[in-house]
Amino acid sequence: MIELTRRATFSASHFYWNEQWTAEKNAQVFGRCANRNGHGHNYTIEVTVVGEPDPVTGFVVDLKWLKDVMEREVVEVMDHRHLNLEVPEFACMIPTTENIAIVAWRRLAPVLSRVGAAKLSRVRIYETPEIFAEYRGEA
Amino acid sequence: MIELTRRATFSASHFYWNEQWTAEKNAQVFGRCANRNGHGHNYTIEVTVVGEPDPVTGFVVDLKWLKDVMEREVVEVMDHRHLNLEVPEFACMIPTTENIAIVAWRRLAPVLSRVGAAKLSRVRIYETPEIFAEYRGEA
Amino acid sequence: MIELTRRATFSASHFYWNEQWTAEKNAQVFGRCANRNGHGHNYTIEVTVVGEPDPVTGFVVDLKWLKDVMEREVVEVMDHRHLNLEVPEFACMIPTTENIAIVAWRRLAPVLSRVGAAKLSRVRIYETPEIFAEYRGEA
Amino acid sequence: MIELTRRATFSASHFYWNEQWTAEKNAQVFGRCANRNGHGHNYTIEVTVVGEPDPVTGFVVDLKWLKDVMEREVVEVMDHRHLNLEVPEFACMIPTTENIAIVAWRRLAPVLSRVGAAKLSRVRIYETPEIFAEYRGEA
Amino acid sequence: MIELTRRATFSASHFYWNEQWTAEKNAQVFGRCANRNGHGHNYTIEVTVVGEPDPVTGFVVDLKWLKDVMEREVVEVMDHRHLNLEVPEFACMIPTTENIAIVAWRRLAPVLSRVGAAKLSRVRIYETPEIFAEYRGEA
Amino acid sequence: MIELTRRATFSASHFYWNEQWTAEKNAQVFGRCANRNGHGHNYTIEVTVVGEPDPVTGFVVDLKWLKDVMEREVVEVMDHRHLNLEVPEFACMIPTTENIAIVAWRRLAPVLSRVGAAKLSRVRIYETPEIFAEYRGEA
Repeated sequence: MIELTRRATFSASHFYWNEQWTAEKNAQVFGRCANRNGHGHNYTIEVTVVGEPDPVTGFVVDLKWLKDVMEREVVEVMDHRHLNLEVPEFACMIPTTENIAIVAWRRLAPVLSRVGAAKLSRVRIYETPEIFAEYRGEA
Repeated sequence: MIELTRRATFSASHFYWNEQWTAEKNAQVFGRCANRNGHGHNYTIEVTVVGEPDPVTGFVVDLKWLKDVMEREVVEVMDHRHLNLEVPEFACMIPTTENIAIVAWRRLAPVLSRVGAAKLSRVRIYETPEIFAEYRGEA
Repeated sequence: MIELTRRATFSASHFYWNEQWTAEKNAQVFGRCANRNGHGHNYTIEVTVVGEPDPVTGFVVDLKWLKDVMEREVVEVMDHRHLNLEVPEFACMIPTTENIAIVAWRRLAPVLSRVGAAKLSRVRIYETPEIFAEYRGEA
Repeated sequence: MIELTRRATFSASHFYWNEQWTAEKNAQVFGRCANRNGHGHNYTIEVTVVGEPDPVTGFVVDLKWLKDVMEREVVEVMDHRHLNLEVPEFACMIPTTENIAIVAWRRLAPVLSRVGAAKLSRVRIYETPEIFAEYRGEA
Repeated sequence: MIELTRRATFSASHFYWNEQWTAEKNAQVFGRCANRNGHGHNYTIEVTVVGEPDPVTGFVVDLKWLKDVMEREVVEVMDHRHLNLEVPEFACMIPTTENIAIVAWRRLAPVLSRVGAAKLSRVRIYETPEIFAEYRGEA
Repeated sequence: MIELTRRATFSASHFYWNEQWTAEKNAQVFGRCANRNGHGHNYTIEVTVVGEPDPVTGFVVDLKWLKDVMEREVVEVMDHRHLNLEVPEFACMIPTTENIAIVAWRRLAPVLSRVGAAKLSRVRIYETPEIFAEYRGEA
């Protein structure tokens, strides 16, 4: 088994806010991220699939196809978007790095589990070069 | 003369929109950046001062002091902010990478021209690792 | 379960030397690292915690809190220090990248095992961008 | 147990082509990579060994020795080479990132399994900063 | 005046060889680069234009347009190509980093001198992260 | 004219201290850098030469030769060294990033002014990825 990983980037806006809480509580828990005007990041997504390389092509998956899947399922959905306002999953889920990784996994897994002998292995989201979350699916 | 440069980062949100134009014209000129919900970036600012190293300390400027100036004049003003809505200069100026560099220069130059034998030489703003603007002040 | 990682940096000095050995033996085993005047690096530490995101906040841990813990337990202890001379653990343990990872784990684990549903998962130390050690604790 | 990783780089040329197929089929499956004039990359190899740090030296392995092994077994064989034409393993195996990782593992494992208490744990090959394959050996 | 820069990447193959010389002389001058099977790199091109930001849009140039120009004039011409064999300028000019920068400038300048108040300022080519050439045109 | 740049790295130790001052004054001016046990960095040096590419080889200078010069004049002198104690120039000059750039220039210029039509254009020293000094010689 071998793991093959591809990266892509997107730029998005978000804020952290819990409607059940007062403004004071939101500010206390979320700090500067509670600014409802939003702020943003250049996110990097790293998608890893695992499988055996095809003996004829030497590919675990076709990287061009993987790029198209990542583009369609994640980048087009999130790039130049306000995550809280425009990505349906975040209507009732705070768009933390952890939750973006989970949402990206849920969008990618159905497509990437259909591909020959390979399957989705992990999704990593970098919010900045200093912070990233990694998800490997429900056990 | 020697140039000394320091980098800092901030995360902010923005959009491109000209109130004089129709939505169609804005979409045509600004593309995905015209999304009024905003999107964001991890910006990097690179500030360069030029001067002679002090013969006693070996410093062109004190880098700790430069960090504090950058923090106070630029990072605190823009980090976790929506540039269009919260930074006064962008009330009537589109926050492109070029204009952010000019605004940062105008905020830094008065302070950095007061510092001994050194003076502000250039300001570079990276919007992403692939795009940056550099400003050296009005000639 | 999801992993959340944060990076920080520190600059320190060290040398490799075994008091039981002759200078020749030290030079032979440790090469240029045996220079007792010391040399240094910009180290990067990467701390990973694993857990379930809190359903309300979307956090595995509060990244601001994690930053403070890393700062207090590792960065303040090692930054701008001579590891052999100023960090107690290295009085009788050579500060190789491997051992710095183990020492950082031992400093972080007691604090990071106290945090709700999350716990310390791994510590990675980069000595240079080309060399890093990763530790996941005693099995 | 602790993992210790070292990186090295090499620049090589390759193309993707299956002799059993027509030119059309090759172009369809391999796209621009089927250009038989070849194209190239700056590859990065990341070699990880796992073991206990030696209690005297603090080393899992001697990094200078690891560098020499990587140089001799992989870098000298592939650097400034045309992988299809000059690396024997690729005479009948397409030099995809996945296969380069497998070939590097097979070259490194015999040497790195001879080293005290440590052994080869993984090999990662970056074809570009956006694409990498990781291999951990046959289970 | 403000400078605006955009990066792009391409992967290509090349070798260094002077037909007037013996194989020995080529090997002596060009070392491993004289291997006629070719080797390759992930090149990065950095294109800088200089001008005044448009007072209405805040743009020195439209970065989407600049990307398309770079794509059409340089990336499509060189990506996944063997520079010596497939890029006409290198039929009688060795594709060193220096010469690639000059060729890219000559391809870009006619288009980028037609754009409003901005003009091409510099072209930088990275052959690896450690080596780059920069050209500012004939004085 | 075209500029050609090559990077190299070295790891060194240093501290900031002025013998004429009290310990209090040193601590006040130099902060944590005044720790006389020393601390260290992974420095990057970037050396730029400027000239016309040779019409036969396409080289401004031979990059292999440039690497050897940088190695001999700077890297061997400073790598795995304590700059204050082991590099003669810093016996009476504080090894700030600015001064390291000046010392590297003075070591490189005599050799790089002897090379055909090319000459040394600038030396840049990165102390960390966030801080660098650039020197272009006495006017």
